[in-house]
Amino acid sequence: MRIYLAGPEVFLADCAEIAAAKQAVCAAYGLVGIFPTEPPSAPDAAEPAWVRVYRQLEAEMRGCDAIIANLTPFRGPSADPGTVFELGFMRALGKPAFGYTNVAARFGARTMAAIGPAARRRGEGWEDAEGMLVEAFDLHDNLMLEGGLHAAGGCLAVEEVPAEARWRDLGAFTRCVEAAARVLRAQPSSVSSA
Amino acid sequence: MRIYLAGPEVFLADCAEIAAAKQAVCAAYGLVGIFPTEPPSAPDAAEPAWVRVYRQLEAEMRGCDAIIANLTPFRGPSADPGTVFELGFMRALGKPAFGYTNVAARFGARTMAAIGPAARRRGEGWEDAEGMLVEAFDLHDNLMLEGGLHAAGGCLAVEEVPAEARWRDLGAFTRCVEAAARVLRAQPSSVSSA
Repeated sequence: MRIYLAGPEVFLADCAEIAAAKQAVCAAYGLVGIFPTEPPSAPDAAEPAWVRVYRQLEAEMRGCDAIIANLTPFRGPSADPGTVFELGFMRALGKPAFGYTNVAARFGARTMAAIGPAARRRGEGWEDAEGMLVEAFDLHDNLMLEGGLHAAGGCLAVEEVPAEARWRDLGAFTRCVEAAARVLRAQPSSVSSA
Repeated sequence: MRIYLAGPEVFLADCAEIAAAKQAVCAAYGLVGIFPTEPPSAPDAAEPAWVRVYRQLEAEMRGCDAIIANLTPFRGPSADPGTVFELGFMRALGKPAFGYTNVAARFGARTMAAIGPAARRRGEGWEDAEGMLVEAFDLHDNLMLEGGLHAAGGCLAVEEVPAEARWRDLGAFTRCVEAAARVLRAQPSSVSSA
């Protein structure tokens, strides 16, 4: 069974090492971890690079049986948008979806911290300077993310990891792999290549 | 034909007025705009509110023929994560997808502004203080978003709107509705209810 390993670690200089470490955890549970990879550079290609990258990643997702998404907050109160897109994509295909975050603080508290003194009361809740409500569901990100994980039969693993290890600690990730192995063992592969 | 109207305007106090305005534009093009709505409050429900909200929005998406996503940057360099999840979801279902943003600055420039003086060189590009690369595809957000729109046969409409009108100006939205009407006229509905 193949698991798509979504997350913003692709932006780190040593992402190949992180990919290998994640794939080793998957292998220990009998799973094949598919880390998103860019297609080879092709300066003369008819399509721009970003279209070729997108097509490759979409094909990799379709070829996987499930997704584990690193939803650790990225440059703001929420997860990396590329990872969130991929989570929505895999949920729509009906594939099991698992997520993790290495920041334990809830979405509401993180959003309030980002808004700072500009926060204003709205009824029993809060809004920002633009009048946008702060979600108050006591979740770890926008409700669509945890809602999607829940609907997909998955879970969100949460750990508080020191900032310097936030993008490399695999404790919560490993809990997702365990959960994925349990769920996938009980069902046939959804992709013909597996 | 029914169009799912995704965007963070749901967080505004006057979102009902914005929904009505968007639906009027859709109606002028012969389309039915479906604005995400929360299910009625049910304090005694077996499931928590966020699960019920998620289920309703997912059902609304499945009942639509296409999506128009408001990808205007929300509380950071990227779009609202709920909207991004929905875009990925609809793309995976093979439905036409359109997006718009009322901020013309590119993702790279917005990300660099958010990083500020902590930005460091990495090769010919830039990375943040955590060593995370700044995407350099000259797009308006993470490449998965524009890649998904492109693969779905849609487009991204971009306008620069003054900050005070950013969540209410419907110029770029209207261009998406025009494009959606053109695309949908050429194909049968993908949902049985339409």
